[in-house]
Parts: sequence; structure tokens; C-alpha cells
Amino acid sequence: MADKKANIGVVGMAVMGKNLALNIESRGFTVGIYNRSASKTDQVMKDHSEKKLVPSHTIEEFVNSLEKPRRILLMVKAGKPTDAVIDELLPLLDKGDVLIDGGNTNFHDTMARNAKLDASGINFIGMGVSGGELGALQGPSLMPGGQKEAYDLVAPILEQISAKAPQDGKPCVTYIGPNGAGHYVKMVHNGIEYGDEELIDESYNIMRNVLNISVDDMADIFTEWNKGELDSYLIEITADILSRKDDLGDDKTKPIVDMILDRGNNKGTGKWSSEDALAVQVPQSVITEAVYARYISMMKDERVAASKVLAAPKAQEEIGDQKEMVEKIRQALFFSKIMSYAQGFEQLRFASDANNWNLQYGELAQIWRAGCIIRARFLQNITDAYDKNPDLTNLLFDDYFKDITAKYQEATRDVVALAVKMGVPVPGFSAAITYYDSYRSEVLPANLLQAQRDYFGAHTYERTDRDGMYHYPWYEEQ
Amino acid sequence: MADKKANIGVVGMAVMGKNLALNIESRGFTVGIYNRSASKTDQVMKDHSEKKLVPSHTIEEFVNSLEKPRRILLMVKAGKPTDAVIDELLPLLDKGDVLIDGGNTNFHDTMARNAKLDASGINFIGMGVSGGELGALQGPSLMPGGQKEAYDLVAPILEQISAKAPQDGKPCVTYIGPNGAGHYVKMVHNGIEYGDEELIDESYNIMRNVLNISVDDMADIFTEWNKGELDSYLIEITADILSRKDDLGDDKTKPIVDMILDRGNNKGTGKWSSEDALAVQVPQSVITEAVYARYISMMKDERVAASKVLAAPKAQEEIGDQKEMVEKIRQALFFSKIMSYAQGFEQLRFASDANNWNLQYGELAQIWRAGCIIRARFLQNITDAYDKNPDLTNLLFDDYFKDITAKYQEATRDVVALAVKMGVPVPGFSAAITYYDSYRSEVLPANLLQAQRDYFGAHTYERTDRDGMYHYPWYEEQ
Repeated sequence: MADKKANIGVVGMAVMGKNLALNIESRGFTVGIYNRSASKTDQVMKDHSEKKLVPSHTIEEFVNSLEKPRRILLMVKAGKPTDAVIDELLPLLDKGDVLIDGGNTNFHDTMARNAKLDASGINFIGMGVSGGELGALQGPSLMPGGQKEAYDLVAPILEQISAKAPQDGKPCVTYIGPNGAGHYVKMVHNGIEYGDEELIDESYNIMRNVLNISVDDMADIFTEWNKGELDSYLIEITADILSRKDDLGDDKTKPIVDMILDRGNNKGTGKWSSEDALAVQVPQSVITEAVYARYISMMKDERVAASKVLAAPKAQEEIGDQKEMVEKIRQALFFSKIMSYAQGFEQLRFASDANNWNLQYGELAQIWRAGCIIRARFLQNITDAYDKNPDLTNLLFDDYFKDITAKYQEATRDVVALAVKMGVPVPGFSAAITYYDSYRSEVLPANLLQAQRDYFGAHTYERTDRDGMYHYPWYEEQ
Repeated sequence: MADKKANIGVVGMAVMGKNLALNIESRGFTVGIYNRSASKTDQVMKDHSEKKLVPSHTIEEFVNSLEKPRRILLMVKAGKPTDAVIDELLPLLDKGDVLIDGGNTNFHDTMARNAKLDASGINFIGMGVSGGELGALQGPSLMPGGQKEAYDLVAPILEQISAKAPQDGKPCVTYIGPNGAGHYVKMVHNGIEYGDEELIDESYNIMRNVLNISVDDMADIFTEWNKGELDSYLIEITADILSRKDDLGDDKTKPIVDMILDRGNNKGTGKWSSEDALAVQVPQSVITEAVYARYISMMKDERVAASKVLAAPKAQEEIGDQKEMVEKIRQALFFSKIMSYAQGFEQLRFASDANNWNLQYGELAQIWRAGCIIRARFLQNITDAYDKNPDLTNLLFDDYFKDITAKYQEATRDVVALAVKMGVPVPGFSAAITYYDSYRSEVLPANLLQAQRDYFGAHTYERTDRDGMYHYPWYEEQ
């Protein structure tokens, strides 16, 4: 083995690193592998003795096992463990080598690392990886950001291991942009994923609590929805989930979903996405409500106590035909999903402008068409929209999205009004429709806000009839 | 002057620092003053030659002009300028001296400075100051956090200069808690202020666009509202604003509010508040929607373009009696305000627990009763609620708030449903009612969320019938 150098190395043999190494190897590459504790490396070699894997037990051995310029994919825990590995590698690398961080890293860290390593002549790519364990093995969606010349050195490998879009077979990877752009795009992907899940969950909750539809029937409804414009991975697995029975309890005919506790956990990337929307000053209400919905779901004890003392609405509303109502919920779900993506792509535009990333929005939707959690048929509509107009300010200005939201807004209003009157929480749906109405408001009440701010803080305001900043003599009698 | 030492010193003679110095002096104290550029100090002395002010032109002179232990109030720009002044002062101070930062400082910075200075034996208080220029001069609401023994050294001065509550004459200052607690509480105060303003502005917008009420009539309505449970500074100034006529245009009979451009600015503290709600994992949707409402208001050009192409709802709704509808809006405003405060106080509780601040929630409402922007009659109800039960989990469990929200929820639902159907944006109102409905939901749809997360990411879930974490064999046929 000693004289046959590996084409690429992978550090970190936890499940994601191992699966990516196996994926790369399966495309005909020789892969160097290394893990801090050698036992994991040994286990991989034992399980896959026939594969073109080159194991190393020390980091020096690992670095020496790679052809130059070296390509090293780090699949270790984000944060300090990533820094620790980088610090160990750095003295052993040569100028022009490429480090790729495929971990779940905050883009701020990626920007700092890229700048620091660039000063040493080492290329650093921060790469978002979506698709979970199975995606890593069979074909993930990859979002690499860093030096363009470094991307070109790894592109042949990344294109082969990535998922391929069903529409045209194109690989789900592209050069995202400089420094933190890749991890930023992955973060917004995850925020959008939070939004998608919340909107599906609200649809389910309205069907459960307003329409009293059984779980079995809901499985059929989601299966039907998945045949139309909502066609997506998350709708597909929701249909499957709703059809599954309990695997552990006394009554194995019960839907598993009825046995699962309603405390929604999170790993922080949705939160990052909202934090940065606040920072770049872009409204991102649907995703943020999805994050808050998880937080409030965690307050289970408070909610149980509150459910016993806080008043529900008295009046029961006329629901009308159930089939019609289900169709309205479907339209509200698609409408709200579009608002969430419109906000997400505005966030990407604000961040791209702020960081000089020159993001190609259509390509982002393109590489999300397969491999990742938010893969969906309608991403093609987003790619088409940006193909038609690369300078699109907001998705809602594209004909397809303008027309479909015009058509579906009425159903969304009906669903939100009904749910609010019936006391069923719809934070995501209502954030979507109030965003739509705010965005299409030529005049918002911020004139009054500016007057208030000028009154108590002398913050000044703009006028509608002339340029400049003005202060009103509020404390003088008129 | 040389042998008569000043009781306290103020650094920074911009309007807030100058007004606080004059306020302190007016209570019988001798005040040392210093400003980086001496001309400002000289101007203050020229304008107030009769006052017990001790001017200094160098920082050494200033420090020597103060009695020991020295008490120094910094009123300089937050961030680097504050650090610069601290670095200059530090070598000149003695152990036990007290530095007070009264600037608009992020609590993270205050925590870092408190820790750093504490190591040098210098006390550091981060103090929120609310009330604007006039408040600084006549009596602000003060939120000091830091070493308790340091607070005790400055308490006699702070109590005298602060506003006094109309209910019982108590000073609007109290010891908030260690290190960053004071600036944190001020930050949440500002977030709540954003929420209050947004909810008032939405009420105005519904009256303007749904009920077609004139600005003059709205001035009367807000004047009326200010006589009841909504009685507050922000309602009072809103009534005044709506009664004011244009001071600059051709037609001086036009309401000034109609001449002000609807681009709502912000200085970042509302954003900080939402960012930390996300960080401590507490739902704070009303304030966050208020922040996003400002952001979307800034997108004026996009909104004007969107207003021409995005569809409005077709159907016009039955509005009913106008007086009744105005009363419903009043109830929706009070209901939503309560949700915003319930969220804000939950945020304070989460932050207090996370940082071991031992915040006294009732006292916070107490010191907000006068001097600050959110001063309002109903803050007494919050103080009463925590007096009755200092361990209150959420304001909504208190009898007063439980009963009034039970009564007003129906009107809120009607207003939100009507506005959504009419296409008038109500992000704050709808965040309030969906929070209420989420909070009183014994079961939320997060069971489905957990199933989804377990399906694509093997994240595991809890069950309703037994302890532990579980993973379902999703990829096996059933």
C-alpha cells in the first residue's frame, strides 16, 4: 500500500464519515481513513476489508498516505473537536492542500477558519451535507463554500458522490461561494426544513382537532397530496409514518404517532437561521415560528397545566364539507410553504449581498432537488424562476408563484380564520398569510411607529413628500 | 474646589450623560463631570455655572476629584468607546471603586466586563436607563446589575434620581441581580416596547384600512382607551400624535401621521431580545414579529412593487357595528399585550435560571411603572401577580390575567379572522392568539415532528406510555 497514495482522506469514522468514505470508495477512488481512536478505524477495515480504504493510526501516517495536493474531508464534531483536528493537521500540510469541513458547523466559524487557513496557504472548504446517514452513503446534497480553485480540485469527487436530480440527472452539488457560503446555505436549508415540518404538522393538527379525521385516513390524504405539487420527501415520509402501527405497546393496532410524546427537539440549526435573519434584518417569520413551536412543545408540563385553566373559544364554527376543507388545508400548506421559501431566499439574498458571496439562487434550488431532506418537486419551479430572472427580488414576483399564491390565498385565509376561531394553533400558517399581506402592503403602519419613536426618543422620521430626516416639535403646543 | 470632593462622577457629556449629571446635582449631590473633548464639558459649565458641578479636563484630574470609594457613571457610546474609557480609568482606580455603565450595552459585554474588572477588585454595574432625554433629566427607570455591595454604595443616589411610581411613590430602581442582569432586563424591556408599539400600530392599521376611521376620530378613540386598562405612556402619546397636524407641508390641516413615511427604523435592542429568546429556547413570537414588521416596513420599494401584482382577497367581509368592532380591537390589543408580556417574563425566567440571576419579577414590573417607555397602569397587575405567587411560571396562570384573557380571547379571534380575511396584516395579533392556543394545548403536533426527525435522522423520540428514548424501525416493512 505504501507507494499507492489515496485520492482523498476522511477524518472521523462516526457514521457520517464512514458512510461518506464508503460512498467515495464506491465511485472508484482510494480513500485514506483516520479516526482519533484507532479501534473505530480497525472496525471499518474489518467490516469492509475488500474496499480500497487506506487506514492510518496516526495523523502523520494519514497525511503521508494521501496524494498531493492533499484532499482531506473532516467529519468530526463541530466546534472545538474540529479546531483540534485542524491544529494537528496544519503543521503536516503543504500549500495548496484542501481541507473540507463537512460537519454541522456554524458559518461564522467557517469564515474565521477559512481566513486563518488561507493566510497559511491552505484551502478551506466549509461544506453543508444533507441527507442523513443514508444520504451520506448513497448520495447526499452537498453545499461546498470556500476558495473556487479548491472547489475545482475536489469537484470531480463531489459530483460523483452526490445525489442526482430525477428531473435531469444533474449532480446535487455546485460551488456555492467564498468562505462561509456553503455552511450558510446549509443553515438556511435546515431552517426551511423546520418550516416545512411545522406546516405539515399544523395541517395534521387541524385535520386531527378540527375535522376529526382518523390517522389512517390522514395517511391516505398525505399519500394523495404527494402525487401533486406538494410531492416531496417530507410529505412522503409523513404518509408512511401515519400508516405505521405501534411496535412496542400492548395494542399493536394503534398508530405509532399516537404513542409518541409531543415534545419537539432541535439541534440548533433552525435557531441559527432565525438568529441570522434577525442579524441581516430580513423578515423570516415562518421559520422562526417553527423554531418557537418546538420550544413551546418542550414546555409540556406548563401546557398540561394551562390546558386545564385557560379558556377555549365557546362558539363552534361551521366547518362545511370535509373534502372541501381538506383541499383548502392542502392549498394553505402549499401557499405557506411558498411564503417560507420566499423568506428563505430573501435571507440568502441579504446574506449574499452583505458577504459578497454572489450566490446563484437557482442553482441552490437545483442541488436541493435530490439527496436532502427538503427535496421536492416544486424546487424545480424555483430554479425555473431564477433561470428566467436571475435578479428576482422575491420569489413572489415570478409568474408561477404569483399565480399560484393568488389562487391559494383565499383558502389560506379560510383555514387560518377557522383554526383561530376554533382555538387550534396555527403559528406557521398565520405567519405565512400575515407576511403575504405585509409584503403586498404599499403602506404599512410604520408611519405611526416612526412618529412614536420620534416622540419619545427624537429618532426623526422620513416624509412622504420630500427627502431628508425630520423631527416634529411634539412638546410644543399647537 | 480642590479639597471638596464630588460625590459621584459622570463621564460623557452627550445629552444623556449631561441630563443625568444635572438630575443627580438637583438632588443635592456634587457631581464631577468629564468628557473626552473638553469643549463639551466647558459648554455644560457655561450653561449651568450655578450648579455643584466639578469639571475636569483630564481623566486623572477627574478621578482625583471624586470622594472614595469612587462612584463613576459612564455615559458613552456602547462597544469600543466604553472599553476605551474603562481602559483609561482602570490604572487610576482603587479596589472597591464602582464603575457604572449606563449605556445601551449588550448584556454579553457587561458580563465579560464585570468578570474582568471583578478580578481587579473594581466593582462594575451594568445599568439599563429608560426614559429618553427627558427621563434622564427628570427621573428615569433604572435597571442596575452587578455586585450587590456595589449597588448598595450607589443606591442612595439612584433612588433619588429615579422616577417615582404614581401608585405608591416608590423609586423606579432596584437591585436587579449579578453581572449582566441589569442590561438583560433593559433589553427585554426594549423588546416589550417593540411589541407594544407593533400592537398599537396594528390596531391603528385595522381602524384605518378595515373600518375607514379618520385620524381625528382615532385620536379620540386612543384618548378614550387611555382612560381604561390600556392606560399607558405609549397609548397616551399615540392619541397625541394622531391629533397633531402637519408642521411643514402645504396643507397644515393634514394629520402629521399621514405625512410620515412608513419605513420603521430600529436601533437593535429588539433584535437582541429576540436573538436571546432563540438562544435560551423560549417562544417570544410577539416581539419577534414586531422586529420583523420593522424589517419588512424597510422594504418599501419591494412592497410598492408587490402591491401592484400580488392578489388581494376578493370577498369583502361583513364588519358589523363599528363601535362594537372598535371595542373588539381594544380587547384584542390588551389580550395581545398580555401575551407579549407573558412571553417576555418567561424569557426573563429562562435567562435568570440559566445565569443564576435570581430575578425578582414583581420588582421588575414595579420599577417599570414610571420613568420608562413601557410605563403602564397594568404593570401593577403584574407586580400583584408575583406578590401573590413569586414562583409563578407564566403570567397567564394568575387569576387576573387568566380571567381577562378568557374574556377577551373571543374578540381577539374575531379581529384576527376579520383582518386575515380582509387582507390587512396582523402579525402581532396573530402571533399572540396562536401563542395562547399553543400554550393551552395539552397535545401539540410535535409527536408527528418527532416521528419525522426519527425517520430521516434517527433522532429518537419519547413515548406517552413509558420513559426512555425510542427509535422506530421505519425502514423495515411492517
